[in-house]
Amino acid sequence: MTPSLNQLGVVHRNIQRADPAVVEHLSRFGVATVHEAMGRVGLMKPYMRPVWRGARLCGTAVTVLLQPGDNWMLHVAAEQIRPGDVVVAACTTDSTDGFFGDLLATSFKARGARGLIIDGGVRDVDTLESMAFPVFSRAISAKGTVKGTLGSVNVPVVCAGAAVTPGDVVLADTDGVVVVPAGVAAQVAAQAQAREDNESDKRDLFASGVLGLDYYKMRAGLEKAGLKYID
Amino acid sequence: MTPSLNQLGVVHRNIQRADPAVVEHLSRFGVATVHEAMGRVGLMKPYMRPVWRGARLCGTAVTVLLQPGDNWMLHVAAEQIRPGDVVVAACTTDSTDGFFGDLLATSFKARGARGLIIDGGVRDVDTLESMAFPVFSRAISAKGTVKGTLGSVNVPVVCAGAAVTPGDVVLADTDGVVVVPAGVAAQVAAQAQAREDNESDKRDLFASGVLGLDYYKMRAGLEKAGLKYID
Amino acid sequence: MTPSLNQLGVVHRNIQRADPAVVEHLSRFGVATVHEAMGRVGLMKPYMRPVWRGARLCGTAVTVLLQPGDNWMLHVAAEQIRPGDVVVAACTTDSTDGFFGDLLATSFKARGARGLIIDGGVRDVDTLESMAFPVFSRAISAKGTVKGTLGSVNVPVVCAGAAVTPGDVVLADTDGVVVVPAGVAAQVAAQAQAREDNESDKRDLFASGVLGLDYYKMRAGLEKAGLKYID
Amino acid sequence: MTPSLNQLGVVHRNIQRADPAVVEHLSRFGVATVHEAMGRVGLMKPYMRPVWRGARLCGTAVTVLLQPGDNWMLHVAAEQIRPGDVVVAACTTDSTDGFFGDLLATSFKARGARGLIIDGGVRDVDTLESMAFPVFSRAISAKGTVKGTLGSVNVPVVCAGAAVTPGDVVLADTDGVVVVPAGVAAQVAAQAQAREDNESDKRDLFASGVLGLDYYKMRAGLEKAGLKYID
Amino acid sequence: MTPSLNQLGVVHRNIQRADPAVVEHLSRFGVATVHEAMGRVGLMKPYMRPVWRGARLCGTAVTVLLQPGDNWMLHVAAEQIRPGDVVVAACTTDSTDGFFGDLLATSFKARGARGLIIDGGVRDVDTLESMAFPVFSRAISAKGTVKGTLGSVNVPVVCAGAAVTPGDVVLADTDGVVVVPAGVAAQVAAQAQAREDNESDKRDLFASGVLGLDYYKMRAGLEKAGLKYID
Amino acid sequence: MTPSLNQLGVVHRNIQRADPAVVEHLSRFGVATVHEAMGRVGLMKPYMRPVWRGARLCGTAVTVLLQPGDNWMLHVAAEQIRPGDVVVAACTTDSTDGFFGDLLATSFKARGARGLIIDGGVRDVDTLESMAFPVFSRAISAKGTVKGTLGSVNVPVVCAGAAVTPGDVVLADTDGVVVVPAGVAAQVAAQAQAREDNESDKRDLFASGVLGLDYYKMRAGLEKAGLKYID
Repeated sequence: MTPSLNQLGVVHRNIQRADPAVVEHLSRFGVATVHEAMGRVGLMKPYMRPVWRGARLCGTAVTVLLQPGDNWMLHVAAEQIRPGDVVVAACTTDSTDGFFGDLLATSFKARGARGLIIDGGVRDVDTLESMAFPVFSRAISAKGTVKGTLGSVNVPVVCAGAAVTPGDVVLADTDGVVVVPAGVAAQVAAQAQAREDNESDKRDLFASGVLGLDYYKMRAGLEKAGLKYID
Repeated sequence: MTPSLNQLGVVHRNIQRADPAVVEHLSRFGVATVHEAMGRVGLMKPYMRPVWRGARLCGTAVTVLLQPGDNWMLHVAAEQIRPGDVVVAACTTDSTDGFFGDLLATSFKARGARGLIIDGGVRDVDTLESMAFPVFSRAISAKGTVKGTLGSVNVPVVCAGAAVTPGDVVLADTDGVVVVPAGVAAQVAAQAQAREDNESDKRDLFASGVLGLDYYKMRAGLEKAGLKYID
Repeated sequence: MTPSLNQLGVVHRNIQRADPAVVEHLSRFGVATVHEAMGRVGLMKPYMRPVWRGARLCGTAVTVLLQPGDNWMLHVAAEQIRPGDVVVAACTTDSTDGFFGDLLATSFKARGARGLIIDGGVRDVDTLESMAFPVFSRAISAKGTVKGTLGSVNVPVVCAGAAVTPGDVVLADTDGVVVVPAGVAAQVAAQAQAREDNESDKRDLFASGVLGLDYYKMRAGLEKAGLKYID
Repeated sequence: MTPSLNQLGVVHRNIQRADPAVVEHLSRFGVATVHEAMGRVGLMKPYMRPVWRGARLCGTAVTVLLQPGDNWMLHVAAEQIRPGDVVVAACTTDSTDGFFGDLLATSFKARGARGLIIDGGVRDVDTLESMAFPVFSRAISAKGTVKGTLGSVNVPVVCAGAAVTPGDVVLADTDGVVVVPAGVAAQVAAQAQAREDNESDKRDLFASGVLGLDYYKMRAGLEKAGLKYID
Repeated sequence: MTPSLNQLGVVHRNIQRADPAVVEHLSRFGVATVHEAMGRVGLMKPYMRPVWRGARLCGTAVTVLLQPGDNWMLHVAAEQIRPGDVVVAACTTDSTDGFFGDLLATSFKARGARGLIIDGGVRDVDTLESMAFPVFSRAISAKGTVKGTLGSVNVPVVCAGAAVTPGDVVLADTDGVVVVPAGVAAQVAAQAQAREDNESDKRDLFASGVLGLDYYKMRAGLEKAGLKYID
Repeated sequence: MTPSLNQLGVVHRNIQRADPAVVEHLSRFGVATVHEAMGRVGLMKPYMRPVWRGARLCGTAVTVLLQPGDNWMLHVAAEQIRPGDVVVAACTTDSTDGFFGDLLATSFKARGARGLIIDGGVRDVDTLESMAFPVFSRAISAKGTVKGTLGSVNVPVVCAGAAVTPGDVVLADTDGVVVVPAGVAAQVAAQAQAREDNESDKRDLFASGVLGLDYYKMRAGLEKAGLKYID
């Protein structure tokens, strides 16, 4: 998108979502695998944690830029959700307020959302778990929010340290949250697949007692770097 | 109470506890609901978390002002507990030490305490869980404490950012901890009830696909604020 | 060991491990009990948490000094593990990167490791749980690491605020992580046993309503310190 | 004040300010001295720092309860300032936004304010310094705020962990911020004076080499506590 | 730029820098003014602070993506600096290591750099001050770094929560750091100018005792929102 | 020293201080230089900051292990200070309380102390500056402390993440705090000297426009690592 001063107060209705088949493929991998397949970029900060144990999601990003203590834009975003989307909410400043609870979750779910990633707080987390609605957040907080100041929907955002463009694939599990740009999603899925195929062999070898030192042929490099063994 | 220089080294034996019927009524609601019914005040900071999954409590506050690394006053407080009380422990400075463990929990429970809220650390958390004794704290820490310096019991305290007067109602669940002043507890319970009655209808509507934008009639306000939709 | 400038780039192959019988004895106690038996020293900072619920370990320390974002030395450490060891990994600077995952866990387990203590991040935590491989860390993060810069293995380290010498006993449970120097391990185990024998009696007394104020004879001390009761 | 559900959306015009003569007396002492004279209570958290080097203030509190990212109530508060007041601004949740800058400072100064204590962020700090307007805050941030949601003015607040009632004396210097309740201010000033009179003698003694061990007669207590000297 | 998997290991030699005349115009304003002119977006997190008092800079961004504990890419970046540039260094993970000191500053200055913005640590800060080389960082740390792993130069980065594209204008002063996209820089400068022209009038009015309540005509809005004055 | 359970409650009167000539030599270098000469180990965490601008110290460590909120052991330590010493105070748990102020500084100075390194808080910082008594701490806080619980003096401690043995050389300046074990101090001083001699030449070269890329011959390594230049 062209740079613009109107970053606040806009809703983009048409976004280019990643190919559903690719999203489905990516959804089979763990976050760590996809992050490696991306070349070790695209992770959100590790303070983003699932609000209930076992939460996991994969879908296309509908982005939201929130104002602190204000969840008006989450209501606006609800209308832009299509089945398979994940809402990714950033805030113009650090905030742990409870922007999201069971009513918005009910609404998002009814629109087909697969979950929420929010660099803020959420509440009603027991209900979110009983609804099996996955949420990854920076905090859990009962603090209520107002509806008074415009943010935006479907603009590029920085969420928990990661740049997210609407339509990108977002994958989250117990290890964290990774963002895969739509344009490279197929390529990343292929590399993740290759990685995964390769890992199961390694796991058997390591279980049998083979060392990474030998498998990865690290001994020469360590010696060259000057490692000394002392008895 | 009259302001006094003697904030440390005193134990108030007679406190005005909130009406047990009102406490019982408040205990039926979640923290988020009661916080909203309070007009969005009274929450402790979100760093206060349950030390075991599913912990929940509601009761009248016996307050404690601790000194860092010293749990003497928790022993003094034990004697002031009546059935239905919750001990609310603040500290004169930030401390994560393990002020409380299974022995004090046994003692508190024998006196009828419903749980502990502590702006500090606790230990023996597996035992606390097996005792089903609810504790909300800033930290889990095995660090032991001494018994050497006076604090106070049943004075007004600031605990995790919230002002607590002895006898106030304290409610805690997965979403956090809220304090309801005894004098407004009945009114808050009534408003929480009204809120809850209203919410179940909304949940059904949102589940059927109705948007908050329409239900709350937000579209006019958003347009007036200048929100632009871009196709 | 003699002070030396060569703290980085060395691997000590021969370390003096604590007596296995003493390790076994210590493994029967909780961290809080052992910390008290130690005279209230030896704890790591409370930010060290189990990455899966219920994790618990006790063993002899193989220490690692990592560089930020680099897990080369964990591979080097794998070769030094003997059955009953726990790898204790410090870093030359604060880092939350994912230094350790399921493949290294497989390798460590094959060597007989009882778990990992790391002042850094780990990933693949669901797999670590399904492997029942105990890990205590400062963070969970999918962030991958490189293999490029030397650290050391089996040098004295400071891990999460605690000094650890190779061969020391490390004990970790839900309450935290404690380090017992090999030279005092037998003495600590004996004192922990004495403490534990004593505690079960106290628990029954407190459950029956006896107060710590009376049991520990605190009333005279409190009065001498100036505690005032106000009715 | 009677507890009330109307904690937000009110402005109390008449508050009971501490006696100006007592404020003047307290203004001669340092924060550490007054905190000791208070019996070691009443301090704000140490994250509250002067925004320019050498800032120092003493005055009577006009309190403000802000909403996150919203400085509307600071404008409302301006009208309530009388010469000798200090504005003490709390927020319903943690926020580092820049609620206050040079224009509000100009307005506050014109009303006779002696400075600002804010559990949030401020901006234009170079101008604040050139105006010699003392500000103590949790953060410096250029982030602008809106004027959309009601808070309150002159209600009791918790600011940076300290309870503040309108009219209390607030004293701040390089060591931190202390709150002296109006009702005990004269007594605290007297004790601070006594402390200060006493300290200059001690300073000379310590400068001459006398040890606190001897001056405070600590040796017996240390020996009784079991301190061992090892040669 | 087209999304690509090759985010690490690339150096873009040709970037589109903002117009020098516009940079010069923007350099006349404070960060708070420019942030407001941007529509309240574009700020870095407030943990970014000048390493010496009075530091201030404005220039076009040469971006760097660092690896934790590794400053190799700062050397690579030096060659890409043109007079009037500011180096903006992000890191793939949180790190406070001392990536930058007096030697690199000498090199950057020789190439015409106007300063450094780094989401990491720096050292030799006394020398940086005596060189009058402006640096804004998350930390000051003597911790040395290695040169072993590739990052990138002149790729889009997220630095301290703000998205930065190479060639953007970066402005930093005591209030913080703001990023102005090259494409809107002229427009932002014009709006900042309009704001500044307007503010000096306001300052005089407020100094004369006019209240923001009246100047901004807030009374009606406050009344409509329900504000109650209590005598 | 032999491991012992008596880590608390002891004072070692005889410690092996580093050679004064070596201390003097080390005092000529900056912390960053000495840290590099040490092989990049020995630094305290970067949260340790000078409490007044320009503070700098170098001396031999008298160590103290404090209890939270208790400064008794600083009085005990005063007696153990010899001219040229620096008191290095750790705490058994994280604490920001004001353990140290102008009276103790007067006493320490009278004994010949060159300053204080404390993983805690201090107060009276304006007076400390006017006394030119250097202090590096984790916090500034007016919070007073008690004298009730034993810690130790001249035992090995972990202070702000660094292991310190009594008698070690401690060097602190604007860049941080580094600990040099007494046994390697002469060797470190020699290496620091070599480093410094070498750096002034480099500074001139870099000032003339020579790049680190060329001076350090990095281009081949970068190419081998796969760095791509894109025009």
